[in-house]
Amino acid sequence: MNHPTTAPMFRERSGRSVDFLRSGFTGISGLLVDTDPHTAAPLRDVRDICTGGKHLRSLLVHIAADRPAGPVPHCDISVAAAFDLLHGSFLILDDVIDEDETRRGRLTVHAAARNRAVGEYGVRGAGDAEHYGRSVAVLSGAAALTGAIRLVADSGADDATTVALIRLLTDAAGLSMTGEFLDVHYSLPGVVADADSVRTASCLKTSPYSFDAPLIAGATLAGRDGDISALRDIGRHAGAAFQLANDLQSVFSPSSRTGKSTAGDLFLGRATPLLTAARQTGARTELEETLAGDNQAGLPRIRELLRACGAVDEVVTRARGDLAAARALLDETGALPSTEARAGFSAVLDGIGESLRV
Amino acid sequence: MNHPTTAPMFRERSGRSVDFLRSGFTGISGLLVDTDPHTAAPLRDVRDICTGGKHLRSLLVHIAADRPAGPVPHCDISVAAAFDLLHGSFLILDDVIDEDETRRGRLTVHAAARNRAVGEYGVRGAGDAEHYGRSVAVLSGAAALTGAIRLVADSGADDATTVALIRLLTDAAGLSMTGEFLDVHYSLPGVVADADSVRTASCLKTSPYSFDAPLIAGATLAGRDGDISALRDIGRHAGAAFQLANDLQSVFSPSSRTGKSTAGDLFLGRATPLLTAARQTGARTELEETLAGDNQAGLPRIRELLRACGAVDEVVTRARGDLAAARALLDETGALPSTEARAGFSAVLDGIGESLRV
Repeated sequence: MNHPTTAPMFRERSGRSVDFLRSGFTGISGLLVDTDPHTAAPLRDVRDICTGGKHLRSLLVHIAADRPAGPVPHCDISVAAAFDLLHGSFLILDDVIDEDETRRGRLTVHAAARNRAVGEYGVRGAGDAEHYGRSVAVLSGAAALTGAIRLVADSGADDATTVALIRLLTDAAGLSMTGEFLDVHYSLPGVVADADSVRTASCLKTSPYSFDAPLIAGATLAGRDGDISALRDIGRHAGAAFQLANDLQSVFSPSSRTGKSTAGDLFLGRATPLLTAARQTGARTELEETLAGDNQAGLPRIRELLRACGAVDEVVTRARGDLAAARALLDETGALPSTEARAGFSAVLDGIGESLRV
Repeated sequence: MNHPTTAPMFRERSGRSVDFLRSGFTGISGLLVDTDPHTAAPLRDVRDICTGGKHLRSLLVHIAADRPAGPVPHCDISVAAAFDLLHGSFLILDDVIDEDETRRGRLTVHAAARNRAVGEYGVRGAGDAEHYGRSVAVLSGAAALTGAIRLVADSGADDATTVALIRLLTDAAGLSMTGEFLDVHYSLPGVVADADSVRTASCLKTSPYSFDAPLIAGATLAGRDGDISALRDIGRHAGAAFQLANDLQSVFSPSSRTGKSTAGDLFLGRATPLLTAARQTGARTELEETLAGDNQAGLPRIRELLRACGAVDEVVTRARGDLAAARALLDETGALPSTEARAGFSAVLDGIGESLRV
C-alpha cells in the first residue's frame, strides 16, 4: 500500500523512528557480538525485516499524536518504533508458521538461518537445517516482541502513560496471536468455519495492532484521552479495510509487489474472507478442485473464478464501506485535531482504497 | 529439585500466585471460547504447563519481598505469577526447539496439538500435523510471554515500580533468548565453542529469569532498592549452581523424575558444561563415538565415561562453590531481612545441593 500524499512531516517522523530502531539494533548487536560473533548474522536479518517495509504503524502513531511542526518528544519516536518492531516480530513468526521463503523481497529469517546452517555450519540433513532455521526465527520473533515492549518501557513517557501504553500494546499483541491461531486452525481439513468466524480471525490478526493500537497510542502520548474512543472506532474500520485489501493483494498481486510468494494463503488452505465469500456461491466446486490441484498452474483460473462469482466485488464493497465509515468518523468526531493529521490519515485510507483495485 | 524445608508461609504465597494464574487462564478462556470453542484445548494445555512444576520463580519473588506474616499485597501475588508464566512461555518454546514430546509428565503443547490435528481434525500428512502442532505452540509461547508482561502491568504496584519491573522482566527474557540461541547454535556440527562460551550460554538461558530477576523483583516490590545489588550477586551464584544441577539431572535422572526425555540435551548435540568438561579429557574420543551411536543403548556407557573422566566431579565442585558463595553473600549482606526469608532461600539452595547427588 502506498501513501502518496501523506503529509511529509509525519513521514519524516516515522523515518526518525525507524532510524532509532535501527540504531537500537546496532547497540544490541554491539553487546551480543561481544558475547558471541555468531549472533551477528541473525540479528542483521531481524533488523532488515523489522526496519523494512512501509512503516505504516509508526506513521499512524505520529499522525495520531498530532504534534505541531517542529521537534517531537523522544517518547513519540520510541513508541512509534515499538509498533514497527512489534509488526516485525509478527512477520518473523508468521513466516515460520506459513513456511514462507521470502518477505519484502528478502529471505525470511528462518530461511536465511537454514541456508547458513547448510552453507556455513556443515549441517547435512535438510530436516536439521530447517529445524535450526525455525529455532532461530522463533527466538528472534520472541526477542523482537520483548524488544517492542522494552522500547515503550524506555521511551521516557511518564510512568502512568508508559503503563497505559504497555497495556495497549500487550492487548493488541494478544488479539493478534489469537487471530493467527484461529487462522491456522481454520486451515485444518476437519474444521469448517462460518463467514463471521473467518472475518473475526482475519481482523483480529492484523487490525488491532496495526490500526487501533497505534492510533490510540498516539493520542495517549499527546494526553488526548478524550479522542481514544473515536480513534478506536476509526481504527477498527480502517483495519478491516486494510485486511480485506491484503487478502485481495495476496491473490491478485505479483509477488514482486507484495514481496511474498503469490497466493500463499490460498495454498495453505487459509479460510480468508475472499475465499469464504466465494465458497458460498456456485463457484465452490470448481474452486475446491482447482485449489486441490497444481498451485501456480491453477492460479489464473482461481482468479477468474473469484471475480466471476462475485467474491471480489463483495470484498471490495465491504472494504469501501469500512473506508467510508472511517472517513465519516474522522470528520464527525474531530479525533485528529489538525488539518495536517487528518490529511495524513486520509492519505493512508486513500492508499488502502487504491490497493482494492485488483 | 525439592525445597523440603522452605518456610510454609512462602510456599503458601507461591501457591496463591499459581491459583491467581490459573484463574487468569479461566478468565481468558471464557473470553476466547466465546470467540471460538477451538481455543479451549490449547489453552488448557498451556495452562497445565504454566501452572505445573515446582513454582520456584514465584517462590523466589515472595521470599525476596520478605513481607511479614499475614496477607500480602496483590502486586506480590501478580508479579510472582508473572515469573511462573514467563517460565511456562520458555518451556513451551524450548520444547518446540528441542522437539520434546513430554514435559512434566504430560505431552508438550506442540505434541498435544499435533495429536489433535490427526485424531480430531482429519490431518493426514505427518508433516502437516507436526507443523500445526508447532504453530500452535509458537503462538502459545508468545502469548504466555505477552501475558507475563501483562500480569506485571496489571499488578496494582505503583506506576514507577511497574515500569521498573517490566524493564527487569524484559531484560531477563532477552538474556534467556540469547542464551537459548547460543545453545542451539553451539549444537551445529561446524561450530566449536570453548568452555567459557558454553558456560555463558548455559547460564544466560536460565539463571537471569529464574534467580536474579525474581529476587530483584521481590525486593523492588517491597521498596528495598538497597538490597538489589546483593540479590543480583546471590541470584547469579544460585542460578549458576541450578543450571549445572539441571545439566547433571538431564543425563543422570530417569525421565520419570525430570518429566522430560532422558538425556535429550546429549542427543541434540548440545554443548553443555558437563560435556564440554568431558571433551577436555582423554574420554573425548570414546564419548564422541558413543554419542554418535544408538542413543538409549549408549547412555549407560556415557554415564560411566562422564563419571570416570572427572567431568561429573568438576561440575559438582563448581556448583558447590557457587552454592557456598550464595550462602556467604546471604549471610554477609543481609539482603533478605527476616530469618524466615533467609531460611526459605537457604532451603532452595539445599534443594539444588541435593540434586547434585547423581
